[in-house]
Amino acid sequence: VQKRWAISGVDLHVVPRGSRRRAGLEAALRDAVRAGRLATGVRLPPSRSLAADLGVARNTVASAYAQLVAEGWLEARQGSGTWVAARAPAAKRTDENHKDQSRSALYDLRPGSPDLTSFPRNDWLRAAQRALRGASPDSLGYPDPRGRLELRRALADYLARARGVDVAPERVLVCSGFAQGLAIVAAALKTEGCDDVAVEAYGHTSHRTTLAACGLATSTVDVDEQGARIDALDGGAVLLTPAHQFPLGPTLGARRRLQAVEWARANGAFIIEDDYDGEFRYDRQPIGALQALAPEQVVYAGTASKTLAPGLRLAWLVMPASLLEPAIAAKRLTDGPSTVDQLTMAHLIVAGAYDRHIRRLRLVYRRRRDRLVTLLARRAPAARVGAEGAGLHVLVHLPDGATEAATVAEAKARALALDGLASYRVGAQCHPPALVVGYGTPPEHAYSSAISRLCAVLAG
Amino acid sequence: VQKRWAISGVDLHVVPRGSRRRAGLEAALRDAVRAGRLATGVRLPPSRSLAADLGVARNTVASAYAQLVAEGWLEARQGSGTWVAARAPAAKRTDENHKDQSRSALYDLRPGSPDLTSFPRNDWLRAAQRALRGASPDSLGYPDPRGRLELRRALADYLARARGVDVAPERVLVCSGFAQGLAIVAAALKTEGCDDVAVEAYGHTSHRTTLAACGLATSTVDVDEQGARIDALDGGAVLLTPAHQFPLGPTLGARRRLQAVEWARANGAFIIEDDYDGEFRYDRQPIGALQALAPEQVVYAGTASKTLAPGLRLAWLVMPASLLEPAIAAKRLTDGPSTVDQLTMAHLIVAGAYDRHIRRLRLVYRRRRDRLVTLLARRAPAARVGAEGAGLHVLVHLPDGATEAATVAEAKARALALDGLASYRVGAQCHPPALVVGYGTPPEHAYSSAISRLCAVLAG
Repeated sequence: VQKRWAISGVDLHVVPRGSRRRAGLEAALRDAVRAGRLATGVRLPPSRSLAADLGVARNTVASAYAQLVAEGWLEARQGSGTWVAARAPAAKRTDENHKDQSRSALYDLRPGSPDLTSFPRNDWLRAAQRALRGASPDSLGYPDPRGRLELRRALADYLARARGVDVAPERVLVCSGFAQGLAIVAAALKTEGCDDVAVEAYGHTSHRTTLAACGLATSTVDVDEQGARIDALDGGAVLLTPAHQFPLGPTLGARRRLQAVEWARANGAFIIEDDYDGEFRYDRQPIGALQALAPEQVVYAGTASKTLAPGLRLAWLVMPASLLEPAIAAKRLTDGPSTVDQLTMAHLIVAGAYDRHIRRLRLVYRRRRDRLVTLLARRAPAARVGAEGAGLHVLVHLPDGATEAATVAEAKARALALDGLASYRVGAQCHPPALVVGYGTPPEHAYSSAISRLCAVLAG
Repeated sequence: VQKRWAISGVDLHVVPRGSRRRAGLEAALRDAVRAGRLATGVRLPPSRSLAADLGVARNTVASAYAQLVAEGWLEARQGSGTWVAARAPAAKRTDENHKDQSRSALYDLRPGSPDLTSFPRNDWLRAAQRALRGASPDSLGYPDPRGRLELRRALADYLARARGVDVAPERVLVCSGFAQGLAIVAAALKTEGCDDVAVEAYGHTSHRTTLAACGLATSTVDVDEQGARIDALDGGAVLLTPAHQFPLGPTLGARRRLQAVEWARANGAFIIEDDYDGEFRYDRQPIGALQALAPEQVVYAGTASKTLAPGLRLAWLVMPASLLEPAIAAKRLTDGPSTVDQLTMAHLIVAGAYDRHIRRLRLVYRRRRDRLVTLLARRAPAARVGAEGAGLHVLVHLPDGATEAATVAEAKARALALDGLASYRVGAQCHPPALVVGYGTPPEHAYSSAISRLCAVLAG
């Protein structure tokens, strides 16, 4: 069985021979240096942190390092760690790597993904064990299209408690990720005679694509420092990110919230509240969900993609009564997450492990944000930081004269993947050049290097 | 050790797997026909002389021939031997009628669900542990819409080996159940300009509903003792259950298979092969997948709903090249099973636990079928049993004068849930009164009581 390890953003593929983890790690590192995937001058993570990420003993990593130092692949510098040794460029960068996605850079500060090494594997496995051992055989049959009642109950409790959502288990619909949820909402809107929806002028272009593919006409609404320009709304529905506008960052203002709800009531319109990172707020109490102001006009959408991992494909909708049946009908045509995953997630929430995990992450991400903001202020003072109060990304306004394309290209040359704001432009509104910096993405051991590189790029 | 066999001047290379000479011979013949090394119209040597040449029992050859005739590769002509069938040069079925809640009767003999107490919880948990501990952090990110490569590889191996599917991992699309798979295929068909599809006149009404909800016009094709009436086909696509027509039971005949493939080729049409219970065949080797006859015209669809549990929401499609990209595009709009489940399933297959589980189940279900057939013959001789060669259900033709509604009602009064054939009527064709008896459903301890009650109801 093949095993994959990621070091500094590089995927290392190892076929462990028997239980010889050290040999496997050694071979993987050697291959990565040889193939140029780990380039000369790259600093390897401290053995302690790599060992933690890999789930192996620290000694295993330390002796693999020592061996490769002895072989000349790596270099140990007294007091400053282990580095990929300078060697003749016989090792050319063949891209025969088996990478899934385009994450080919060593360091990745693009938004959208949490630190995947933080996924609580042991908590999840323990919960899966309890869930599956405690499940009745019947629960393994064809599932309720809304999702397992155990999970809908657990989510209703959690959402009311943590996000102030006005919710009963009957209104919850468990989905395979937000993309599926959005398609289901689109189908329900169509059934109810709503055939146009506005999206924010900056956001994920894929959301607009999904809505259009579901047969809805789409338009955009501009975003300012108070969030979406509710006064400019028109049509039958709008998709909003009230907690932390993606990617520009403002929280939808109090007056705007009331305005939005009034607009929806007056026009019989619906609001889709994409609460993608509502759990992460650092400087004050989380802003409660907009949904609570008008549960019959607002579809609330949450996800485990940021709190646990996107690979779980777990998300949830809380539906207004009028859209519930059409949404269930649409859900029947597709299919939800497995019963095993749903029961596992329910256990995780009920046992308190989900809340603990989020609290732990909130500290981690807050520290990351603080380091980023401090470092940027010191080393690249001309780059102003915004959108930093919440979530897993900040907006970095580029210094005068800098362009997004040039900045992204320069970062790429330093093995750092960045996203310019323009790639999130959905409408006509045009914002000055900026970067959308996701500080959740890198594994812990690679974070310092990643943000140092960012500062170096921005300091010019 | 490789062995070479010469038939009609063609060398057949076979690597016998263990001592399974017959399987080896079958595979060699199938490959030779598929690859065109044994051409249409070639007459095969009499089984007696080939057996002598090969040093195997005559019966080994005869049953290999019979199997390949059943699959449509060969043709047996009365009194004149065995020939390679006429074909141009050259991949299931799921029932997903979300009936989870209504299982309130004490005993349940409705079709559609396997014995849920048989789900191999410990195997699954062990595989989940290995999968999750061995997974790279990156694998928990946003998934490939086709599904994890590890699972697509494992499925390709499994499907080629167990179902004779012509498949490469690139052609596999992992889905959340057959319902989602069917909607994806429907979307791909529409993209390719096909906007009508025929379904069998008896089947799951939900399949027709799904296709219609996806914007396809639907029609029906009648079913007789040889399966669907291919000669009556029209339109751009057809959904078939070749291995074991649901619910009437015939296996699509050899001649019909060829006819179906010819029809598809001549009309640029597509066949969706719903191989919902192809793993379960009791009285002879499983009939290989129709897909192998025309991989570019047939979408093969398989599922874990019958072999493991519907609650897993795991199914797979093998796509023709022309429908692959549109299907991937449709998949992007919805979402697949979790990475955890996919990696777990891959481990289960690769470790051999999936095959072992199916072999165990095949014995269990065969015994159940034998007991049911025997008991009915003894206690309710007027009720004739059909469709009993495969799968998890039989058709019980009601005695003269009995009606489905009265029989189902009487069973209900005895706490036994039954389905009348009429509830699976999708088209105009009208079959005499019968029950669709799912003998897979009850847990082992309740099976005797369930079938005793059935006999009591049928004996009047």
